[in-house]
Amino acid sequence: MQAPVLGVKALFFDVFGTLVDWRTSVARESEKILGALGFDLDWLAFADAWRGEYQPGMEEVRSGRLPFSKLDVLHRANLVRMAPRFGLENLSDEVLDDLTLVWHRLDAWTEVPGALTRLKTQFRIAPVSNGNISLMVDLARRNGLPWDAILGAEIAGDYKPKRQVYLAACAAFDLEPRQCMMVAAHSSDLAAAAACGLRTGHIARPNENGPGKGEASPSVPVDVAGSDLADLAGKLGV
Amino acid sequence: MQAPVLGVKALFFDVFGTLVDWRTSVARESEKILGALGFDLDWLAFADAWRGEYQPGMEEVRSGRLPFSKLDVLHRANLVRMAPRFGLENLSDEVLDDLTLVWHRLDAWTEVPGALTRLKTQFRIAPVSNGNISLMVDLARRNGLPWDAILGAEIAGDYKPKRQVYLAACAAFDLEPRQCMMVAAHSSDLAAAAACGLRTGHIARPNENGPGKGEASPSVPVDVAGSDLADLAGKLGV
Repeated sequence: MQAPVLGVKALFFDVFGTLVDWRTSVARESEKILGALGFDLDWLAFADAWRGEYQPGMEEVRSGRLPFSKLDVLHRANLVRMAPRFGLENLSDEVLDDLTLVWHRLDAWTEVPGALTRLKTQFRIAPVSNGNISLMVDLARRNGLPWDAILGAEIAGDYKPKRQVYLAACAAFDLEPRQCMMVAAHSSDLAAAAACGLRTGHIARPNENGPGKGEASPSVPVDVAGSDLADLAGKLGV
Repeated sequence: MQAPVLGVKALFFDVFGTLVDWRTSVARESEKILGALGFDLDWLAFADAWRGEYQPGMEEVRSGRLPFSKLDVLHRANLVRMAPRFGLENLSDEVLDDLTLVWHRLDAWTEVPGALTRLKTQFRIAPVSNGNISLMVDLARRNGLPWDAILGAEIAGDYKPKRQVYLAACAAFDLEPRQCMMVAAHSSDLAAAAACGLRTGHIARPNENGPGKGEASPSVPVDVAGSDLADLAGKLGV
């Protein structure tokens, strides 16, 4: 194992964008529901607009203006807020509920299940995502992600990049932050984890938000960086 | 599927005694540590005495006299309390720490890994144990228990049979209590789960606490009862 990661016992993973392709999955699954109702939208633009409400929605919780609500609840509120921009003012509660669950049906980037299975032989592995437990479970079952446990926002009662989310994950595994590595395709996530004392691993997802719209490399110092999760696993000696 | 369990989406499992043989495992693992230091005890009696402190230790938390501490912490305090009965007054902190972790190295009853793997094809499965997350992860890795998530006391911040532990598990999976079944070898656990609206499944472990010292059948009404987990899986139609 490389010197920077000696002593690492657990790997924590960001999920949306890092392990799963939320953009084309949300577009495809939304088209299934709304297309059947006769709507014809720019589905990728719809996915982007929904994701655009993600950080503002969580900021209401992080700032303390709203009590903690699981991400499913925020996803639904974000949808209600942005849907009128697509001429979707009058969706029924049932359709809004169905649409909210498209975030439970995202596809993993192709190398992820195999790479996670390899990494699990050497490390405890858990998502440390802002997604709620049931959402993480559905993504794991859909894609064969062999988690040891589901950690993250719902365990901590707050949203990344708040310190408590990273520190609660370390504490759940009885580990010091320096024994844990946060893995993400987003430099902001890694910077926040590093500020808590965790090691950091970056994965390139240069097309996460559309062609050429994603992080091809980290913009902050990290302990290790990979072109994808399989490459990162190799660099961790697995 | 049988009528009593129609609509059940998730199975929650008690672990100590129900899925793993804590008694002979704690005896064996304690002997490895203390035997190497020259002690020669009745190791099964030692395991029984340690387990005997289990409910009183948790009652301090359930009653509100102590803030929530994870079970590893209680196991260590329970050990310190009972060790003098076995002439173990002067164990070092390091040995006490090592002994505490024997509870992370318990063996599953033989049919459990295969039966859980089958059940996972039809149900979400999670431990709802009083054991902490890291303990549950270590037991899962040791025995190949394919959990979807680790729920239970550490998520709820209290100990069974408090209602919050069962209800927090249902909420984590976005399910109503009637959509969840608690599976245990202990009627008291099942009675508490049923009082919260969960379905219940009993597994016979007639030798949990020694030959003939365990529940061969439930002493409360349950939805389904099995001679072991494989039998219960069959009765659930899996």
